[in-house]
Amino acid sequence: MADDALFAPTESVLRGDTADVYFHRTKEILAAAEVNPIVTMEVFAGRDGMLCGMREVRALLERVCSPDAMIESLADGDTILRKEVALRIRDRYQSFCLYETAYLGYLSSGTGWATAARAAVMAADGMPVIAFGARHIHPNAVGAMEYAAIVGGCQACASVIGAAMAGLPPSGTMPHSLVLVLGDTVRAARLFHEVIDPKVNRVVLVDTFHDEIEEALRVGEALGDDLWGVRLDTPSERGGVTPELVRETRARLDGAGLGHVKIVISGGLSVERIARFRAEGAPVDVFGVGSAISAAPAIDFTADIKEIAGRSVAKRGRIPGITPTTRLTRWEQTAGG
Amino acid sequence: MADDALFAPTESVLRGDTADVYFHRTKEILAAAEVNPIVTMEVFAGRDGMLCGMREVRALLERVCSPDAMIESLADGDTILRKEVALRIRDRYQSFCLYETAYLGYLSSGTGWATAARAAVMAADGMPVIAFGARHIHPNAVGAMEYAAIVGGCQACASVIGAAMAGLPPSGTMPHSLVLVLGDTVRAARLFHEVIDPKVNRVVLVDTFHDEIEEALRVGEALGDDLWGVRLDTPSERGGVTPELVRETRARLDGAGLGHVKIVISGGLSVERIARFRAEGAPVDVFGVGSAISAAPAIDFTADIKEIAGRSVAKRGRIPGITPTTRLTRWEQTAGG
Amino acid sequence: MADDALFAPTESVLRGDTADVYFHRTKEILAAAEVNPIVTMEVFAGRDGMLCGMREVRALLERVCSPDAMIESLADGDTILRKEVALRIRDRYQSFCLYETAYLGYLSSGTGWATAARAAVMAADGMPVIAFGARHIHPNAVGAMEYAAIVGGCQACASVIGAAMAGLPPSGTMPHSLVLVLGDTVRAARLFHEVIDPKVNRVVLVDTFHDEIEEALRVGEALGDDLWGVRLDTPSERGGVTPELVRETRARLDGAGLGHVKIVISGGLSVERIARFRAEGAPVDVFGVGSAISAAPAIDFTADIKEIAGRSVAKRGRIPGITPTTRLTRWEQTAGG
Amino acid sequence: MADDALFAPTESVLRGDTADVYFHRTKEILAAAEVNPIVTMEVFAGRDGMLCGMREVRALLERVCSPDAMIESLADGDTILRKEVALRIRDRYQSFCLYETAYLGYLSSGTGWATAARAAVMAADGMPVIAFGARHIHPNAVGAMEYAAIVGGCQACASVIGAAMAGLPPSGTMPHSLVLVLGDTVRAARLFHEVIDPKVNRVVLVDTFHDEIEEALRVGEALGDDLWGVRLDTPSERGGVTPELVRETRARLDGAGLGHVKIVISGGLSVERIARFRAEGAPVDVFGVGSAISAAPAIDFTADIKEIAGRSVAKRGRIPGITPTTRLTRWEQTAGG
Amino acid sequence: MADDALFAPTESVLRGDTADVYFHRTKEILAAAEVNPIVTMEVFAGRDGMLCGMREVRALLERVCSPDAMIESLADGDTILRKEVALRIRDRYQSFCLYETAYLGYLSSGTGWATAARAAVMAADGMPVIAFGARHIHPNAVGAMEYAAIVGGCQACASVIGAAMAGLPPSGTMPHSLVLVLGDTVRAARLFHEVIDPKVNRVVLVDTFHDEIEEALRVGEALGDDLWGVRLDTPSERGGVTPELVRETRARLDGAGLGHVKIVISGGLSVERIARFRAEGAPVDVFGVGSAISAAPAIDFTADIKEIAGRSVAKRGRIPGITPTTRLTRWEQTAGG
Amino acid sequence: MADDALFAPTESVLRGDTADVYFHRTKEILAAAEVNPIVTMEVFAGRDGMLCGMREVRALLERVCSPDAMIESLADGDTILRKEVALRIRDRYQSFCLYETAYLGYLSSGTGWATAARAAVMAADGMPVIAFGARHIHPNAVGAMEYAAIVGGCQACASVIGAAMAGLPPSGTMPHSLVLVLGDTVRAARLFHEVIDPKVNRVVLVDTFHDEIEEALRVGEALGDDLWGVRLDTPSERGGVTPELVRETRARLDGAGLGHVKIVISGGLSVERIARFRAEGAPVDVFGVGSAISAAPAIDFTADIKEIAGRSVAKRGRIPGITPTTRLTRWEQTAGG
Repeated sequence: MADDALFAPTESVLRGDTADVYFHRTKEILAAAEVNPIVTMEVFAGRDGMLCGMREVRALLERVCSPDAMIESLADGDTILRKEVALRIRDRYQSFCLYETAYLGYLSSGTGWATAARAAVMAADGMPVIAFGARHIHPNAVGAMEYAAIVGGCQACASVIGAAMAGLPPSGTMPHSLVLVLGDTVRAARLFHEVIDPKVNRVVLVDTFHDEIEEALRVGEALGDDLWGVRLDTPSERGGVTPELVRETRARLDGAGLGHVKIVISGGLSVERIARFRAEGAPVDVFGVGSAISAAPAIDFTADIKEIAGRSVAKRGRIPGITPTTRLTRWEQTAGG
Repeated sequence: MADDALFAPTESVLRGDTADVYFHRTKEILAAAEVNPIVTMEVFAGRDGMLCGMREVRALLERVCSPDAMIESLADGDTILRKEVALRIRDRYQSFCLYETAYLGYLSSGTGWATAARAAVMAADGMPVIAFGARHIHPNAVGAMEYAAIVGGCQACASVIGAAMAGLPPSGTMPHSLVLVLGDTVRAARLFHEVIDPKVNRVVLVDTFHDEIEEALRVGEALGDDLWGVRLDTPSERGGVTPELVRETRARLDGAGLGHVKIVISGGLSVERIARFRAEGAPVDVFGVGSAISAAPAIDFTADIKEIAGRSVAKRGRIPGITPTTRLTRWEQTAGG
Repeated sequence: MADDALFAPTESVLRGDTADVYFHRTKEILAAAEVNPIVTMEVFAGRDGMLCGMREVRALLERVCSPDAMIESLADGDTILRKEVALRIRDRYQSFCLYETAYLGYLSSGTGWATAARAAVMAADGMPVIAFGARHIHPNAVGAMEYAAIVGGCQACASVIGAAMAGLPPSGTMPHSLVLVLGDTVRAARLFHEVIDPKVNRVVLVDTFHDEIEEALRVGEALGDDLWGVRLDTPSERGGVTPELVRETRARLDGAGLGHVKIVISGGLSVERIARFRAEGAPVDVFGVGSAISAAPAIDFTADIKEIAGRSVAKRGRIPGITPTTRLTRWEQTAGG
Repeated sequence: MADDALFAPTESVLRGDTADVYFHRTKEILAAAEVNPIVTMEVFAGRDGMLCGMREVRALLERVCSPDAMIESLADGDTILRKEVALRIRDRYQSFCLYETAYLGYLSSGTGWATAARAAVMAADGMPVIAFGARHIHPNAVGAMEYAAIVGGCQACASVIGAAMAGLPPSGTMPHSLVLVLGDTVRAARLFHEVIDPKVNRVVLVDTFHDEIEEALRVGEALGDDLWGVRLDTPSERGGVTPELVRETRARLDGAGLGHVKIVISGGLSVERIARFRAEGAPVDVFGVGSAISAAPAIDFTADIKEIAGRSVAKRGRIPGITPTTRLTRWEQTAGG
Repeated sequence: MADDALFAPTESVLRGDTADVYFHRTKEILAAAEVNPIVTMEVFAGRDGMLCGMREVRALLERVCSPDAMIESLADGDTILRKEVALRIRDRYQSFCLYETAYLGYLSSGTGWATAARAAVMAADGMPVIAFGARHIHPNAVGAMEYAAIVGGCQACASVIGAAMAGLPPSGTMPHSLVLVLGDTVRAARLFHEVIDPKVNRVVLVDTFHDEIEEALRVGEALGDDLWGVRLDTPSERGGVTPELVRETRARLDGAGLGHVKIVISGGLSVERIARFRAEGAPVDVFGVGSAISAAPAIDFTADIKEIAGRSVAKRGRIPGITPTTRLTRWEQTAGG
Repeated sequence: MADDALFAPTESVLRGDTADVYFHRTKEILAAAEVNPIVTMEVFAGRDGMLCGMREVRALLERVCSPDAMIESLADGDTILRKEVALRIRDRYQSFCLYETAYLGYLSSGTGWATAARAAVMAADGMPVIAFGARHIHPNAVGAMEYAAIVGGCQACASVIGAAMAGLPPSGTMPHSLVLVLGDTVRAARLFHEVIDPKVNRVVLVDTFHDEIEEALRVGEALGDDLWGVRLDTPSERGGVTPELVRETRARLDGAGLGHVKIVISGGLSVERIARFRAEGAPVDVFGVGSAISAAPAIDFTADIKEIAGRSVAKRGRIPGITPTTRLTRWEQTAGG
């Protein structure tokens, strides 16, 4: 299991630096007015999706809520419906009012990523998907994003921190820069094989210098049975990776006695493109997916006060009172963690 | 000017935890093979936009590159074209290969946010836009996002950390929860006015319990000239904020002698909706914009090796050699910072 | 049963003032030429629909046709197909040639309205629909329009004359002007309750001054069990009536022990909007429908001579001779009415 | 000038039979409560258009309002903008509250028809348009509809009553039934010429039995210089009237020395079809337009109370107080007419 | 069976005049280099369709290939799938390299025509289709086009050469010019009946001078039982042939005791229009189809070398080696024909 | 100038084998009836275009018409408008009635091809276009098609016969099969250079075995200044030819000192794709266009009799009499050829 510390809030979050300033003012006003009722807050999403971010929310709320707070929630990986309650907090309001920005943010981003990963995994229809999108988002969010991708069903992810959060080894092949710096794909393949821990699969990127299939055959000849797979990442300037290219690669590898070599593809793979590869029967073994997950739009979460000091309330537009639901699980230990 | 420390890379980034694992392996292989040429890397965007994230990139590269590295770039706030070089790094490749994931990520997210903010600011056509989207993204990225919103032209932002990075005071009104907990909008307004620093504008949220305009008039009567503005955030269940609502609010405020009270609007404002408010002449004074900025898709950046040891190279699909450009500025001090 | 006099042709119609002038000339020419054969005229619609207007047609033709004319037709409320014969007149041609404009007009307008009402009633899927569209059409046609709405399945209508034609009491709530003139919704509700015949349901309009739900709760408190329902007619400037507003109103009424109070909605309800309320499960009790019925396009009817003096004829484009059909019913008394 | 009596309200309208029943109840309540303030009511349209129906409104209000009422309005034939005030009534409210349904109805229907007629006339771009749609609407509304068509720019209309309201002679050619009953187009043309007042133009319908152009040539031979025009009304089953048919008819008439014979077309002419005839240069002399005018959707009018006893008011969603405008003309004599 | 000579290649084809010049050069180079391996060429289509042109291909290849060539193919009238092998040639390459342009051309055009004919025949759903499109293509291709139309399922074709290739008598009615030159449709019909071989069906074109149905009835009266059918070819200027026109023609013919007279229609019939006639139940007896077949786009065929001297090969983008298939039939006699 | 014999009608055309059979019957009937008036026939197109096929029409009509026939026409390469007269024949009708199918066919196909070629040439905007589509149509039509392509503005064509008709040398590079049979692109290039007439430009196809650019560089090294150009024909399975590929090829050729080597592209080039290459500034030197020309839809031509024995006539739907035009040129010698 992954290390809890990786899910802990940063000092900045704990100080409220990442909060909207009006929550600081709210706390200041309520303190001055000596108003601090027990409040029940319900949190829900604006679209259907796969929940993620709750583990970080829990690590935060367990640090800040009162010892006798009552908190219930769904868990990372649960499917949620639009407007369904995913988190309910019952505590003195001043204890947690400063953290609304943060807990909504963890859930909005996390659920957006996990839901997008889920869609990619469904489109891949049984073939493994690996999250390759770290380069497309701010590094401070890389770990949470790749953890969410795993929650959404990806088999692995590329960054060290994401993999650690998910309790898995990181996964990777080789970048174009390695091949360029070494000047030849076969040389890069051989050095990789010599230097890198044998437990890592040998997957060689084959589109850097020459025709993809030529290179695949050269690498196959060089590494033989040690070659686990080749990666096709043909740039869009050269037509991108297509089902026909994968089919031809498979046929030519098989024709050269390299039937054991798997085909990994990457490069701008959207849900629609993954589905087309599957629908056309292209023999892809692994899909590497980047911005289709990392740049997925957040799923907005909203927090509504539904009860104050035992009385049902709501702002205009919302139904007052606790929303009936049987899916929430009560957190056993809510404070002092 | 904002504090440089706020732009510094985290320890996790410096350790390479947020890097794709294949860069660790690349470095290991090159070290084993004793290959460490001077490499020129060029970084460009996949779409037109407004550059952001470069200040964080610089804080990182100045920490990790060699003392004699030569780095040139555009700056935060510069407009960039698709495929235009925004950053060029010339250094021993092992010095910086581990950080490709991070510097692309800073730029991809930052430029996506700043570009979206720019579009909202253009749509607002001279009226101020304030970034209100902290709640829609992971808290670890809140500061960078709101700083990018300011770079894109927003007048202010809501989070403490974003404001600090931008060197501005944070901006906020009041949340629904304050009104709900205090039980009455006028009471909330009065307490805000008593408790909060007089330098903060008094902007009261008026849609929590009653008809927006009724409340605005009640608050106006209570605070009189001290009331700077009212915020309309009507939920979609009640039709959202519309140009007609703003126009009626203005007319009724004016009719009650409250011509000085400004109107701030928020709630799912997209570029299209902002433009419609302006086109229909709705008398909005301030636009509060959330996920139109915070959930803007990243703009992917790509890093290409274009020269190795003085020789022009490129992977298939790219033009070998240094790309001619006169817009880049050379960094004066590139290491030892 | 409704009073036959309400369906009688006006003097203007009987004089032929509303006829196309070329029918006056046709009659003049045929009289001069002493040509007056027995002619069979068939009348059919250009679209599928629900027939209405036939009762007025009958009241006209029974006044003008020869005693030995043979007339057959379908009846108000029958569904008709495109090009299906709805009326067949066999008489000396000079007897009825002047009235072609009128009988086509009764059927075109009436069938247009009834067909539109039918569509609204189908969309409401079991919940009552009331015709509220009198204000959207010329007052001389109000009675016929609202009678057609009842034929199409509406439960009631708003005008005195339409209700009389349909043999029902008229139905209404209260206009915004009553509330405005009395200055307060609760005052209007109380006066209505004191003054108006107790057999009339107490339905109070609640969107004039304040938030709809606030007003509903105030009125509920004031009238208690005597309150039959509230009407929501939120203007489009305030977002119109939405399924969410209805749902919240229901919840808040129930929460205040006003579960018996029904919800009537109105304001630009089209068939599509009615269907959406039903599909989303909004707890609407009564739909008030205006221009979706009153401004429905007429369904054009056409009259074709198919037989002259026992010989099959037709103009180019039509099939000569009597069209086979078994659905028509022969009028028992065709003249001297 | 047309006879004022043709614009007078019917007894049914004066009794309030065509009113929504809630206005009867409103009057009953206000009378019981002895509330009868001077109220200013403003009436405006929901879409841009050409105003019509005001003459009937005036004939009504002059009968029912107080002698000292102050009424201002625009006039039939004025263009109006969406939400522009077209009528303003200032009177004791009980005097006119019963007639809101009627005056809105006159304006809604009348303006809908005139606006549609205007569009057809604009499309005809200088060639005359004649209103032929009496058969497509309820006979009680025929006069008002055809009067509105003339207001909208039509050169003539077909019904006796519409023409009387517009102060013009009615216009017509001959129906298919005349030709069918007489058995031959040339015989119908000859008898028309013998019997009908010589002041009426001889326009012969030529598509009943044979090819349109053959018939046109036969009729031209028979009537020679006495033939004013031919009407093409080819049914849709035979392809309808097309620009090519008109062009060929013109060429063949000219080729037969019948250059003086005009071409009138009719049959489902929409604004789009009229525009196409003009754009393709088809030599049409007169357009006969039916349901494009008579079945035009009404333009909804709304009445808003804006002042009560000198105090600005409005319901939610509207701006309180008198709307500034300089276009209205005050009625000189508002009662006792 | 049709005469083989009609399928023989022209002298121009045999000389290679119609070949792309680069095949002449290829042969010259290979001869100079003394390279002439046994090559296996596979030919496939770019879209699904109905194969045609193979009989001409066979007549060509049997003239030019080596006696021991091995050739397999599908046959005219076989359905083929995209990328399915339709022809496989195994021979010394110099024997047949010059003819690639020609054999691809026969198949591309022929399959395009047969596939389009098939679609028209399917749309006609059991009613006969006759190919009338000779006038829309270059006369040198008329025979092959009409033969392909018959392969695609047409019952007959209009040209002498096409009919000869298909082994059928040619089919035709009469052109407008015959009627125009003789000056009267009935005269044309009578002369046709007197002069033309009684085995030819009497089908008279009836839209030249007068209304189609009038003429049909006159011709029916003139020829009585000898009249087999009438052809409707109404020009688009007069609305073209419509389902309603066919229905009226049928009704009026039947009403005149001409129930035995069939209705043939023509004039710009596309697959969509044929399907509409059938869907609306129009009683068409024969469809005459022109450019829907003759101007159908060719279906491109491609020839790929898959084996050279027993070794699997392919150009980039194609799978090397013989494609597995069981549908091909080996030609019994491949040379010396 | 090209050889007249190449435009002569085939024996089959002269015998009337390619004619619609009803023209044979028409001639038989008219001969039997001894009807042979002087007829004026006008021929026009259904769409705007560039005329082609007239030279073949002239070669036919000069063989068959009477010595005193009067024939006027436009010429190959003239632009024509929809319905504009392109050919007018005045002769005894029996002389030419049999050839209507043929002369319409020459014009329909020829004008379709020339018009499509024109569109491709316009899209190429000054860069040369070569017709490569012989393989996509029946070989009997190859010559006429490629001649039409030249008339439409192509600089050259690929077939021997098309080039002969146009009076130009044929143009070609090398097929994939040459490279495949020789087993290496450089070997094919070298042999081509040794064997083929030095007047032929050396253009080498470079996508058969390896990456296009690698091969281009290898071939450039092998042939040096003798290499005129390379052809890119990348299959769609590999992304087809794209503007980016052309740009990269240019850059890498230039980088290798091969700035003189031109780039020819081919493979499914439509007008839209050509325009995109130009719009994006891709440095293409020659476009090879196939089915965009050869599979262009024919432009239907129609022949109308407009005068018989000096009397204006026309069938229904057309204007009788000679159409005024000043563009036609009278043929000097119309018979006895």
